[in-house]
Amino acid sequence: MRRAPAGLSAEPPGPEVFDLAGFLATRTAAVNTALAGFLPRPAAKPATIHRSMHYSLFAGGKRMRPAVCLAAALACGGDEAEAMPLACAVECIHTYSLIHDDLPAMDNDDYRRGKLTNHKVFGEGVAVLAGDALLTQAFEIVAQASGWRRYGHRELVLELARASGSRQLIAGQVADLEGEGKAISAAQLKYIHERKTSALLECSVRLGGMSANCTPVQLAALTDFGYHVGLAFQIIDDILDVTQTSEQLGKTAGKDTAAQKATYPAIIGLDQSRRIAARLTSRAYAALTPFGARGAALRALAGYLLERQK
Amino acid sequence: MRRAPAGLSAEPPGPEVFDLAGFLATRTAAVNTALAGFLPRPAAKPATIHRSMHYSLFAGGKRMRPAVCLAAALACGGDEAEAMPLACAVECIHTYSLIHDDLPAMDNDDYRRGKLTNHKVFGEGVAVLAGDALLTQAFEIVAQASGWRRYGHRELVLELARASGSRQLIAGQVADLEGEGKAISAAQLKYIHERKTSALLECSVRLGGMSANCTPVQLAALTDFGYHVGLAFQIIDDILDVTQTSEQLGKTAGKDTAAQKATYPAIIGLDQSRRIAARLTSRAYAALTPFGARGAALRALAGYLLERQK
Repeated sequence: MRRAPAGLSAEPPGPEVFDLAGFLATRTAAVNTALAGFLPRPAAKPATIHRSMHYSLFAGGKRMRPAVCLAAALACGGDEAEAMPLACAVECIHTYSLIHDDLPAMDNDDYRRGKLTNHKVFGEGVAVLAGDALLTQAFEIVAQASGWRRYGHRELVLELARASGSRQLIAGQVADLEGEGKAISAAQLKYIHERKTSALLECSVRLGGMSANCTPVQLAALTDFGYHVGLAFQIIDDILDVTQTSEQLGKTAGKDTAAQKATYPAIIGLDQSRRIAARLTSRAYAALTPFGARGAALRALAGYLLERQK
Repeated sequence: MRRAPAGLSAEPPGPEVFDLAGFLATRTAAVNTALAGFLPRPAAKPATIHRSMHYSLFAGGKRMRPAVCLAAALACGGDEAEAMPLACAVECIHTYSLIHDDLPAMDNDDYRRGKLTNHKVFGEGVAVLAGDALLTQAFEIVAQASGWRRYGHRELVLELARASGSRQLIAGQVADLEGEGKAISAAQLKYIHERKTSALLECSVRLGGMSANCTPVQLAALTDFGYHVGLAFQIIDDILDVTQTSEQLGKTAGKDTAAQKATYPAIIGLDQSRRIAARLTSRAYAALTPFGARGAALRALAGYLLERQK
């Protein structure tokens, strides 16, 4: 039996060798090309808004949500090209949420991915509008997907709107804002992380599965996977904020502590946080069992999210 | 031949007598009930965001966009109940755009419809998120519409996303922001007004027609109507800002002048602005000819928009 490449994952990702670096490189390129095709060009009138949208969308994001979306399509025996519009839509939502979260009225961040945040370059007014435009663009892109037998445009739009809406993604940001400087419980922090991060990751894999006309059983397995990977991903973000320098992260380190934001390390300690992240990833691996060898890309991505250093 | 009620319109609205006050009263009530049904309750967790969404959505808006949407369904022989989700979606978009436009980074308005603006009550962070949530909610509501033979959810979502996106509604706000304090031409101002106001009004009547499975010819007529009414509506807004007091308007009067914003009266004078608004309304009336008596509600609404004092 062949072994997985060293350092990819703490648990054996299965018998197959999966070239994760190759997968991520090719998919990032494909997603970038597709995104550029969906968006108006930067010079399209009014150029300010389109330059601002492009600035944040092409600021070096890891494209993890598109990657898990495409990998979920593969896990269900689907075609990545069918999932591509959905992968791009999710990335537009993610980018809009970062632009708005970075605003002075929210997290007040000057840097993101080693570059000035949108409002530092374009001003607050345009940054608000660029976020609005990317959010709107996401739904325009979903409308351009094929639509499938089990999942038509109604289901796709509902899926994205609910994950991004006032009970999920936005609820997480509101609870995060309200929790600043307050002593919050581990349960409350879990509520925030589930919404700020799990919701959209879960949505990404579900949309990928839908593009492959997945069965209800497959959709439930993807939901389980997305939820656990998403929560692990956010806990690792908390851990990295404590343990890494700004240079390593490409963004201001220690921001959570400075802003007196509750984090897993602050509430339950670093070691316990690491153990929870590892356990969540194990749960995510387990959710992939029904997909067999086709789940290789999702399995490798889960390993990567646990091992990442930035 | 019976005459239209006095004061409704500068041009004869056709042989029928149309009870516009009754139409607006019943439809506003119906739209409010439907909106309350689509949105999470104000107490839904996290209550801050839902209270904030309700605050602006139920702040006494005139529901003109829902009204023209429902009236367009009637003009095409359709059922208003079918158009209701689309009418509500458009109102969510309109309200989100007002919340974001009022922010300190944009127009910096303290009052809207005689009440404190969203950010004055809930703070800037929550106001940004309430706008985001209403924008997202609009698409969730569209997904819950029936979908019709000629116009499925793909067409409905595309319609709303394009009218609200970076080439239309948001383009108008960007151009408006960039034009502040500058000498802009009448052509540039028309560009702004077409996007800030006409785009969503045009979209409202088109969606109403779509809910009635309108023919391509009917859709073209509705587009023509919506464009001209929308542009007239915005020019009248400019005129009222100059001629009315804050008390009459229920919002800060003279803001455009104070902000050195270009307006039709400032660029081409008050009388010429009034003549243009009247001419645009005539064009809107003409677009309704194909609908005959069924166009009565749209015709009355156009008259109302020209005669309004606030």
